[in-house]
Order: sequence, then structure tokens, then C-alpha cells
Amino acid sequence: MAGRNHLYIPGPTNVPTEIMSAMNVVMEDHRSPIFPNLLKPILQDLKKIFRTETGQAFYFPATGTAGWEIALTNTLNPGDTVIIYRFGQFSHLWGQMAKRLGFNVEIHEEPWGTGIPLDKLQARLKADSAHQIKAVLATHNETATGVTSDISGVRKAMNAANHPALLFVDGVSSIASIDFRMDEWGVDGAISGSQKGFMLPAGAAILAFSQKALKATETSTYPRCFLDLTDQMNNNKDGYTPYTPSIPMLYGLRKALDLLLEEGMENVYARHYRLAEGVRKAVAAWGLTLCAQPGFESNTVTAVVVPADKDAREVISTAFKKYNMSLGGGLSELAGKVFRIGHVGDMNDISMLGALAGVEMAMLDCGFNITPGSGVAAAVEYYRATAN
Amino acid sequence: MAGRNHLYIPGPTNVPTEIMSAMNVVMEDHRSPIFPNLLKPILQDLKKIFRTETGQAFYFPATGTAGWEIALTNTLNPGDTVIIYRFGQFSHLWGQMAKRLGFNVEIHEEPWGTGIPLDKLQARLKADSAHQIKAVLATHNETATGVTSDISGVRKAMNAANHPALLFVDGVSSIASIDFRMDEWGVDGAISGSQKGFMLPAGAAILAFSQKALKATETSTYPRCFLDLTDQMNNNKDGYTPYTPSIPMLYGLRKALDLLLEEGMENVYARHYRLAEGVRKAVAAWGLTLCAQPGFESNTVTAVVVPADKDAREVISTAFKKYNMSLGGGLSELAGKVFRIGHVGDMNDISMLGALAGVEMAMLDCGFNITPGSGVAAAVEYYRATAN
Repeated sequence: MAGRNHLYIPGPTNVPTEIMSAMNVVMEDHRSPIFPNLLKPILQDLKKIFRTETGQAFYFPATGTAGWEIALTNTLNPGDTVIIYRFGQFSHLWGQMAKRLGFNVEIHEEPWGTGIPLDKLQARLKADSAHQIKAVLATHNETATGVTSDISGVRKAMNAANHPALLFVDGVSSIASIDFRMDEWGVDGAISGSQKGFMLPAGAAILAFSQKALKATETSTYPRCFLDLTDQMNNNKDGYTPYTPSIPMLYGLRKALDLLLEEGMENVYARHYRLAEGVRKAVAAWGLTLCAQPGFESNTVTAVVVPADKDAREVISTAFKKYNMSLGGGLSELAGKVFRIGHVGDMNDISMLGALAGVEMAMLDCGFNITPGSGVAAAVEYYRATAN
Repeated sequence: MAGRNHLYIPGPTNVPTEIMSAMNVVMEDHRSPIFPNLLKPILQDLKKIFRTETGQAFYFPATGTAGWEIALTNTLNPGDTVIIYRFGQFSHLWGQMAKRLGFNVEIHEEPWGTGIPLDKLQARLKADSAHQIKAVLATHNETATGVTSDISGVRKAMNAANHPALLFVDGVSSIASIDFRMDEWGVDGAISGSQKGFMLPAGAAILAFSQKALKATETSTYPRCFLDLTDQMNNNKDGYTPYTPSIPMLYGLRKALDLLLEEGMENVYARHYRLAEGVRKAVAAWGLTLCAQPGFESNTVTAVVVPADKDAREVISTAFKKYNMSLGGGLSELAGKVFRIGHVGDMNDISMLGALAGVEMAMLDCGFNITPGSGVAAAVEYYRATAN
């Protein structure tokens, strides 16, 4: 249909025109004497997004999936034990990756819709008195279910158990949008990608590692090359990269950092909370429920459970074909049971009201028993009441 | 200085405005029902660039360096023996990668400026009657020295030795610019990147594998995940990817394929030969020599040897600071001994004459004993005589 596509998936997110324009550059020599003037400040400013002063930030021309692998293969040894709680497709995939890469993976099942169970984690770590567990893999924001886990709580559980494992956090769909404090929470590896809160196309793994994690790279015997952190460090210290970076991506990242830091991270977090809260008010007004259990609601993506006699795929298909709006689908065991509304990145009130209106139309078309306008009205009231 | 930078490095190369414009798209859902309409034809048309009908083409959101790793880790087993001839920084790095990844690497030294010694290769393969060697790693175009090796000859040597090893070819700086015939030459893995002949920014590993190589993925026990070919195959068959691709890169690749196929691969090869030949005429007119020995001259990059009393770094620095022109430097043992002129991608006669004029100015500034205008004149004569 005419008119633009309305993109409400949790990544890739809408790229602001300012960023697309900033990426529209001619190529340049990544070995020139002035190239470090571009890269070095980016790596410094990234630390402000990760909220770390003692850690080090990295850019790889890859994706968040590569970021998961970078954390594992640069710091651990083959066969090392890692622990992960599985409660959605992305925590599932990270655990599967660790298994495929030859680590001994303790996968603990939790109901989809919940997050990391802090008490259980603490008990498990306490029981591991021999410190066999070398890393805790924590999915900060489970994109598949719209669940945010308490990483500060994970750190407290680790400390309470006096456990020395590394803490690796999948922040692909949280960092640069949901409150994240690397130093304060004692995160050893923070993994993100360009296509969510950073408001860029996919194609950059954006990471930060603590000094403890970087120290671990020295003893890790895991074979690695393209995703090697040491190669990056050796080159980054002079402002260069071990192989050709994407020039447009770096200029886009520069612009994204400018936009985020100009808004201020606390404001970025507050905006995402507020937009998400409006969506949640709408879902409640429709009489539907979230996949996320209370206390786990994500501020970047909301997974909405459809009634048992409905197929969420039809809502998504109708929204796309009839109204040119893209929603996220239910993944794996959630296929057909939920649709997902992304509210991450370059979003504001009107963006979300467009999403909610489109969802209402699609649900009504699919015979949902909802009151037309009810969700939009609930969000409108909330947004008006909380607008600055 | 005012005026644009003139980029004559062998990658990233100049991206045509048509491609940059094609990349300037809004993001879209990579799981939508229409996404395969974008990806599937790209993967099909890539086969026309690799010149393969029986092989399969792949896109990874990574770089050519990742492409090297993809070939090794998807088809071989840890500890397998591979053979590589080292005659420049990039054949060096590929061999080093294979070592770091735990393969048993037979590195044979050849003088920098030469390429793969076909007789020696044939003899070595013949001597390997137990077929311990599982893969031949062949650097088609050694970007560091401006040397092109004879891949057709490599295949003939392998066949003459009746050796079943896989043939992997680093075509990062040759594919889509220098004659390359995957099926005809029996190449099992062809590795390229986006930022050379494909005229795109860095950020895509572009590959093709033979059925024999794809079969080998089934028995390879090497741990891998982000760079796994099987994950790609399982998703690509339906037109999808295992993780988020770069939407702008795919639209750019679509446009690059259109431009290349419209020009015609034979014409693309002929253009690169002709532009390179003009550069070589200029070098001869200056009384300088190529790093490449006769018969090994590359059509995408020319490494020019400076007189023993000169430092090539000064030429490069002068060209950059005084004339805003970027040349390639000498890498590793060639540092200071050569400068490199890239003539790959979106180039034509006037582009190269600009490069040659700039090089002349910089060399004269550095006290080179050359006749002003001599190189440009030689190239002008050649280009005029051979222009259509």
C-alpha cells in the first residue's frame, strides 16, 4: 500500500534521518593518520553508554550474535562450565551457542515470561563451592518475551555467594535504552548490537569488558581469530582496527552517540519507560495480558498474549498486509501465542499511538473482542498526563 | 585542504553514489514475508559474479577476514593439515589465522613479489600420497604486493597430483574485478568482502562454496556458531538469515550486482586490466619497478618499489597531507619500501590519471629523480589508444 511501512519490531529499529545522513559518507583510508580521530572518541564515548569508567569498549564489524561468542571464546577455556537461565528464544540461543562452542553449559529452565531467578542463582552459586562455574550468562532483556531481568540483583546474588565467576550480560535489546550500569553492577562483559537502542542498521557488535574479563583473555586458550579481543586491543590503543571497519557504521555510531548523550542516558531510560508504560496501559485496556510476569516488564519490547482461540500470526499478517505495519512475531514455543510491539530506539508518543492504533485495527479485523479505541485512549491519557 | 579526498587505496574503495543512495533506506523487518524477495535474488545473482552454477553463495554481516575463518572452520577438523604459500601480508595473515585456529599449517615461503609456485605445489601434493593435506589456501590477489596468482594453474597442479584437498581461494581483492571462474577452476571456497570490487563499504563477507565443500561441513567437528554455514543454509533456503542482517548492505549489494552485471563481468575484468596497465606504463616511465615480478602483476593494486635511498612512507604522507590523496602503504617487511596504488572498483581513466598525477607531485616533492609528467603522459597515451 502507499505510505511508508511502520516498523514496530524490536530490531532493526527505525534509524533517525540524522543518522542515515551521517552514514552517507565517502569511504576513507582506515590506516590514515587521521582515522584515530574518528575511532578513539567513539570508543571513549561508548563507555558513557555502558556506564563504565574502568572497562573498555569495543566495536566489531559483526552483530550481537557475534558479541555473545566474543565474550565466551575470549575469556574461557574449552569445556569450562557456564550457567544460563532459559526463559525465551534468545536466552535459549545463547545457551545453545555455548554448547555448540564446546562449553559445559548448565541450562536452567524458567517459565517464559519470567527472568533470572535471583534466589535460585544465589543458591546454585553457593553450592558451587569448588567454583566450577566460570561465567554467568545473563540475558538482561529477553526480546522474545519482553522480559527484563535484574542484573543488579544478579551481581548481588553472585556477591552473596562469594562467587568469582565472570558476569556476562546480553544487553543487545537493553543497552542504550534500558537502565544499564556496568561498573555499578559489576558486569564483566556487556554485549550489544547496533540495531536496537543505538538506532543504527545491524552490522556492529558493540561491547564493553571489565579489566577482570580482559585479564582472562590472557589465559584463555580458546581458538579464535576474527572475534579476538586482543587483536582489537592491540590496534585500538593507537586508534586503529585489526581489519577493515565499516566507515559508514562508524560515522553513524558517532552520530548515535551524539544523539544519546545529548538526550542524556537517564532521559533515554525514562523515555523508554514512559513509552512502554503507555503500551502496557493499552494492553490492559484491551483486556489482554503481557507475556512478561509482573516485575519483569521490558521497556523496549512488549509481548502481548492473544486469547487461546486466536492466532497471533494472523494479527501480524493483517497488520503487515492491510496496514503496512511490522510487528514482531512469537518465536519458537510462543509462535502464534504472542505478538510483539517494539518500542526501542527512535520512538516517541505519536510513534507508539500509531502502533497501538494499528494493532487495534488488526485485532478487530481478526475478530478480537476488544473495544475500538480503548487501547489508544488509555495510552493517550497516560502520555498526556506524563508529557513534559 | 578544500576539495575532496582522493582515495586510491585497495579497499575500502570508492562507493558509487548510486550505491550509497541505494543504501539510504529505512529499516525493515528481516522476518517479514517479503524479505526473501530481497535476499534470494541477491544470493542467486552473486553466483554470476563467482561464476558458479553448481556452488552456493553466502552473505555474512562480517568482513573478508571472517570469510577466511568461515572456510576453515566449517569444512575442516581441528588439527587438519592445510598448505599455504606466503608471499605477502595477507597470505601471511591467513596462514597465521589457520595456526591460531589450531590447524596444522604448512607455510611455504616464497619471495614477496611472486605468487603461488605451481610446480612446487604440484610436487608437494604429489608427495602427500597419504592425502594428509586437507585444504590448499590460495591467495588469488595478494593485496600487499600487487600480485595475482594463477588459480586455474593451482587447480591443474592439484589435478595433476590427483589430490583431493579442498581449494580455498582468498579473492577479497580479486572477485568482482579480476577474472575469476569458480566452477571452471574447481574452487571449493571463494572468499570475498564487500569493500573492494563490490564497491560497498566494509561489513559483508561474500562467499561461495562448492557442493564438495558444503558436504564437508557435515563432517566438520570444528566448533563454530556465528560463522556457521549450516545455519545460513537452513535459513537462506527460505530467503532468511540466522540473525539480523544489515538492511542497507543488502540494498547496496543489490545495486552493486545490478551495476556489475549490467557492465558484464568480462567488461569489468577488461576495465580493471586496462586501468592497471596504464598505471604500469606510468611506473615504467618513471623508471621505477613493480613489487610484482613479471607475470604476477595485479589488476586491482600496484605496489611501486621506491629507490633504496627513499622512504615510501614520505611519498604517502606527502600525498595525504599536501594533496589530500590516500595511497596504500607498504605492510610489514615492505614498510617504507613500496607505496600502493589501488585501481579497484568504481574507477575509470580520469580517476587513474588523477592518481598518477598526485603520485608524481608527491614523488617530486620527496626528491625523486623522475621527469615531471612522464608517468601521466605514458598512461594518457595508453588510455587514449585503448579507449572505446
